[in-house]
Amino acid sequence: MTRPGFSPGTLAEKVLAGDRSALGRAITLIESGRAEHQEQAHAVLDRCLERPRTGSFRIGITGSPGAGKSTLIEALGLEILKEPQNRLAVLAIDPSSSRSGGSILGDKARMERLSARQEAFIRPSPSSGHLGGTSPRTHEAILLCEAAGYNIVMVETVGVGQSEISVEAMVDYILLLMLPGSGDELQGIKRGIMEIADGIALTKTDEAPEKSVSNSRSAFASALSLLPKKYPGWNPSVMPVSSMTGEGIAGIWNDMQRFLSVLQKNGLFDENRKKQLDRLFRSQVEELLLKAFYANPELRSSLPAIAASVQEERLSPFSGAKQLVEKIIHSPR
Amino acid sequence: MTRPGFSPGTLAEKVLAGDRSALGRAITLIESGRAEHQEQAHAVLDRCLERPRTGSFRIGITGSPGAGKSTLIEALGLEILKEPQNRLAVLAIDPSSSRSGGSILGDKARMERLSARQEAFIRPSPSSGHLGGTSPRTHEAILLCEAAGYNIVMVETVGVGQSEISVEAMVDYILLLMLPGSGDELQGIKRGIMEIADGIALTKTDEAPEKSVSNSRSAFASALSLLPKKYPGWNPSVMPVSSMTGEGIAGIWNDMQRFLSVLQKNGLFDENRKKQLDRLFRSQVEELLLKAFYANPELRSSLPAIAASVQEERLSPFSGAKQLVEKIIHSPR
Repeated sequence: MTRPGFSPGTLAEKVLAGDRSALGRAITLIESGRAEHQEQAHAVLDRCLERPRTGSFRIGITGSPGAGKSTLIEALGLEILKEPQNRLAVLAIDPSSSRSGGSILGDKARMERLSARQEAFIRPSPSSGHLGGTSPRTHEAILLCEAAGYNIVMVETVGVGQSEISVEAMVDYILLLMLPGSGDELQGIKRGIMEIADGIALTKTDEAPEKSVSNSRSAFASALSLLPKKYPGWNPSVMPVSSMTGEGIAGIWNDMQRFLSVLQKNGLFDENRKKQLDRLFRSQVEELLLKAFYANPELRSSLPAIAASVQEERLSPFSGAKQLVEKIIHSPR
Repeated sequence: MTRPGFSPGTLAEKVLAGDRSALGRAITLIESGRAEHQEQAHAVLDRCLERPRTGSFRIGITGSPGAGKSTLIEALGLEILKEPQNRLAVLAIDPSSSRSGGSILGDKARMERLSARQEAFIRPSPSSGHLGGTSPRTHEAILLCEAAGYNIVMVETVGVGQSEISVEAMVDYILLLMLPGSGDELQGIKRGIMEIADGIALTKTDEAPEKSVSNSRSAFASALSLLPKKYPGWNPSVMPVSSMTGEGIAGIWNDMQRFLSVLQKNGLFDENRKKQLDRLFRSQVEELLLKAFYANPELRSSLPAIAASVQEERLSPFSGAKQLVEKIIHSPR
């Protein structure tokens, strides 16, 4: 994937210089399942991380399909770019990708005006295998975007259970999108997601009756008041918004900036970032460890026979695993 | 947890003899996070798996909170127990547990008539950390129930994304519960869940207008027809049902038995079971491996300093992980 003469060092230089196609290529390397690509990508990232970085703000945008994530990202992105110092990267879910393997046109079309802007970088990523969620790769892609000079990074996820747990591990602020009047049938699910939201946007208010918007607003506000506080000093707001008319968009961006300033003052911003780096480090340790394990020649020769015995129920999965792991751990190297 | 003189061998004998309290204790051991309990539990399971087993049927019951899972499990369970050869185990989610740590009364009250039956064993499990889903422990609990002579095992999960992916890895038939007229806002999420359903129950039809039931039924049926087939030879049905009046309950049990006979004939039943055992085996291998890794003294002494360098951004997570793993792999033992 890196061409001859296109070393990780060169790619890193290009990324650091803000070269968009180099950034795209580095993210592609990160997302590749091939070991050599991962290694190259980590060499690029290592180079990038050596440089002192300026502050960044990472925003998670989550909500069910149909909640209006891409139109809100576009409207909010254009609002953010009104400030000339801002450069925005969007790591979007490619809706067409989980089966087809990914299409860039899908998302470019979804965020037409934003993608036309020179200060914006939009990267649709296949969501396959992660159910619209994030992976350690998403965290690495965020770091690459920051190295390329994007001071605001948005990560889009579909609000289905575990995906938010992992987006929480890599962003600073989570905006949860909800349709007004979407019923309380799923309160049990919403609750788990609401617990990690730093703000709630009631979307598509132009399409809903005013009464339904205000009812939903108070319902969510009172639900929020029952939940344990995520951060001392911060109360999530419920913000009605219309990406069509633009109403409420500036208010959301204000809310995010207020959040940033509160958490920077009380030290929780830095503390979170440290925890997130630690989590990425530990997931990386486990990944490397399992990789080394599966590359072990002793394992490669023992695994098939033990696996077959387990499948044929001559050996329990527990005894089989124990035999295998003990072989590796006590084998001479 | 095992008392003096109450060895894994004795516990296994009691489980195999159908002793309910021994079965409960064995499941508690499995669910315990303590290494010694896990080891005892696996010794019990190993003993149990040595015995030839009679055939079993494993059923996953999934749906959003409020879809009527527990009332349907009770009605369906009583239907199943009309056949005198059947013994039924239910691994239920304890709705009160994710915060409070678990309450047995919760589920007993939810399934009052079923829990009064001698041929039924109901086990509420805390869902904490798994978002209402399953864990490798659930698979092990299924094996224990089967060893204790329960030929039908039901596993209840909340339909939120990844939990079904894992219930798919341990049951034969997945019944998805849907409320009629619950709107199409969440189609994107439903789709993922519908793809793994072997049957869909439209629940609480006694509470919904007839028109809404028939509309939902055709909507789901046409959605199903667009999805790729999970198994050749099997078309999932959409089955209206009322746990209150009992209408449709026998039909669901018939559907499940038809499914069983089709998949046993074409060999897919055995093939699935083999794949599931293999997956359990591999998850066990990785668990043991990571455990051995974190117990390594070299790691325990190197980890804190490397983790601190990563958190202070003096070392990238990737280089840090590499350093650590290489230390272990190349260290003398």
